[in-house]
Amino acid sequence: MITQTTLAALDAADPLAHCRERFHLPDGVLYFDGNSLGPLPRGVPARMKTVVEEQWGEGLIRSWNTAGWMDLPARVGGRIASLVGAEPGSIISADSTSVNLFKLVCAALALNPGRPEILSDSGNFPTDLYVASGAAQIIGRDHRLKVVEPQDVAEAIGPSTAVVMLTHVDYRTGQMHDMEAITARAHAAGAIVIWDLAHSTGAMPVDLAGCKVDLAVGCSYKYLNGGPGAPAWLYVAPRHQAAVHSPLTGWLGHAAPFAFDLGYRPADGIARFICGTPNILSLAALDASLDAFDGVDMRLVRAKSIRLGDLFIGLVEQELGAAGFGLGSPRDGTARGSQVSLTHPQGYAIMQALISRGVIGDFRAPDVLRFGFCPLYARFSDLWGLVGHLREIMATEEWNQEMFLRRARVT
Amino acid sequence: MITQTTLAALDAADPLAHCRERFHLPDGVLYFDGNSLGPLPRGVPARMKTVVEEQWGEGLIRSWNTAGWMDLPARVGGRIASLVGAEPGSIISADSTSVNLFKLVCAALALNPGRPEILSDSGNFPTDLYVASGAAQIIGRDHRLKVVEPQDVAEAIGPSTAVVMLTHVDYRTGQMHDMEAITARAHAAGAIVIWDLAHSTGAMPVDLAGCKVDLAVGCSYKYLNGGPGAPAWLYVAPRHQAAVHSPLTGWLGHAAPFAFDLGYRPADGIARFICGTPNILSLAALDASLDAFDGVDMRLVRAKSIRLGDLFIGLVEQELGAAGFGLGSPRDGTARGSQVSLTHPQGYAIMQALISRGVIGDFRAPDVLRFGFCPLYARFSDLWGLVGHLREIMATEEWNQEMFLRRARVT
Repeated sequence: MITQTTLAALDAADPLAHCRERFHLPDGVLYFDGNSLGPLPRGVPARMKTVVEEQWGEGLIRSWNTAGWMDLPARVGGRIASLVGAEPGSIISADSTSVNLFKLVCAALALNPGRPEILSDSGNFPTDLYVASGAAQIIGRDHRLKVVEPQDVAEAIGPSTAVVMLTHVDYRTGQMHDMEAITARAHAAGAIVIWDLAHSTGAMPVDLAGCKVDLAVGCSYKYLNGGPGAPAWLYVAPRHQAAVHSPLTGWLGHAAPFAFDLGYRPADGIARFICGTPNILSLAALDASLDAFDGVDMRLVRAKSIRLGDLFIGLVEQELGAAGFGLGSPRDGTARGSQVSLTHPQGYAIMQALISRGVIGDFRAPDVLRFGFCPLYARFSDLWGLVGHLREIMATEEWNQEMFLRRARVT
Repeated sequence: MITQTTLAALDAADPLAHCRERFHLPDGVLYFDGNSLGPLPRGVPARMKTVVEEQWGEGLIRSWNTAGWMDLPARVGGRIASLVGAEPGSIISADSTSVNLFKLVCAALALNPGRPEILSDSGNFPTDLYVASGAAQIIGRDHRLKVVEPQDVAEAIGPSTAVVMLTHVDYRTGQMHDMEAITARAHAAGAIVIWDLAHSTGAMPVDLAGCKVDLAVGCSYKYLNGGPGAPAWLYVAPRHQAAVHSPLTGWLGHAAPFAFDLGYRPADGIARFICGTPNILSLAALDASLDAFDGVDMRLVRAKSIRLGDLFIGLVEQELGAAGFGLGSPRDGTARGSQVSLTHPQGYAIMQALISRGVIGDFRAPDVLRFGFCPLYARFSDLWGLVGHLREIMATEEWNQEMFLRRARVT
């Protein structure tokens, strides 16, 4: 039996409890959607004021040098590297996840000429599939995207596989791929891997170097709390950096951007994957957001994440047994990212009813209610509130109202 | 003879004089580099506070709908459209100029199959040339970039030209191409045009629709004052929108992004050129920046811009005749963008000496001193200050000091 007392005791003993103060969390809201948009870290408003009013307003063009703007993609990348087990100089922050994935899919196909296939799975976030098939199409020749079921990926890797491109944690189910095993399997078959860490970065320890990952991308507005549409990031293993090339040959990926040569010469290292002028306001916000991870042991984050998910599943079964919810995520916490999905035929209306009570998760068609648990600010006792609201909504059939059935979808 | 009195009288009669208050301009600075980074518009800090603290901090994920975040690329695009004579629904703001140019070069080549050549000129900003040759390379087949001298573009257009890709105003010389004539010449030869309006947008009237331009991109951190690395924009003429496709097939260019279909289906209209999740903080800053153009007649902007440039050239000749400066821009104001470039063998050191006095222009290798005149905030009397400082620097050989000769280059 899970009780309020159980949960309060866990909060009292939580070694990450002090991190909650690093975020602004609105009054009257229980937030379980940090896997879609992380909340505002406390240091961001002051940093935005500095970058806008002092660096831009007073420093003007001089700030490209004096305020370190030019270094931001690499500096922010370096901070992200430390959260995902990447080597120094292997990550830059720039552009969107989709744009970065395009760069890497093209680069990976060129690393593996003669093999036509990009292999992915049906659990991948659609933009990854769209981008990969867009890249295959523009390159032409025989390149194609092959999509299999998540559990069939390993055995689908074969001699025609150029690239295995997967999202580590499934955005709907939270099911996690075994990064090390699939990477090893791909390498044994002569394929390159690209991992999308959108739902992993900041939510759990990741060991890109240890897993011998070739290429990776990630998102910064979910568990990294970088703000709406924050710049994404991109990883190239040091062993590949001299051989890979970005198809997006913008001036800031040039070896000497301010020489204004007419011909392109890629910069050494990861910098060649920068393209246009970096978006400084957003990079500065992300940089300030990353302070929330200062001194945080990602193993503690993972342990708390699993415990939050396990307790949520336990509470749903204890309190909502007859309400018709299915479990849309692995029951085994070690096979799950930092979210738990429930399924329900009325999932959409139920989520609307929850949101109108200030309890924010999100809905993914056709029937998934998705709850993200972010160990830096989530409290165990929040689960009691969440399940309590769900119980009331189901008991009173509050969801069964026109306003919840018809309301425009919250994205 | 141009005197301080002449200039003060022009300021007193300037119908745009009231616009200067729309910007924060630091004390003790004369700013002639708004063509590299526009100054901070007054409304931006409050807007950033709202988007960060209220929309993100309080609204969280709900703000994608309730604060109109999802519409920002099209809404900001619509505001830019009104400054460049574009049809409603023909511009979105997203990504960087380089990324947008890649989308359009690929799209344009696909519109004109069987023709191998992207034609550009040696006055184009290098990133445009890099991106075009990167696009040609990834597409492969016979595509190639051909670069001619600016004055030779029109006659170089021929039956193998798929795309004519030019920057309207040369970033070094300020020389302006005849957009209407070159577009007509390209069309007569069966080619598509892509204009880069980096140095035109916000500096002069542009008539994309009237000139029958096919495709265009532009930058928002120069004369639009959108902030460092502000999102760029992209134009597709309505007549082409159903037939052109972005190679960067990200989820927000999908017809139904939240259906999470596994297959890509492009959105109708310009929205298919959105790729990843829009960068909201930067788009909001740009949106607020555009308020500085409210009620502004771009013909007045152009008239003042030409006058500022003409007077600057006149003053340099009057005051600095023996100092060894050459004119690096057209003398005819109607053939010139909103900048005047001077050349001098010691240009780099001279610009450093100016900057150390708070007089900010920029230097472009090998010998170009570039001064941008932004009619919304430049005063005629500022020219007196600029030329006065230049005269002192040349008379005292202040530039001929170690610190100015050696200092790291201001970008």
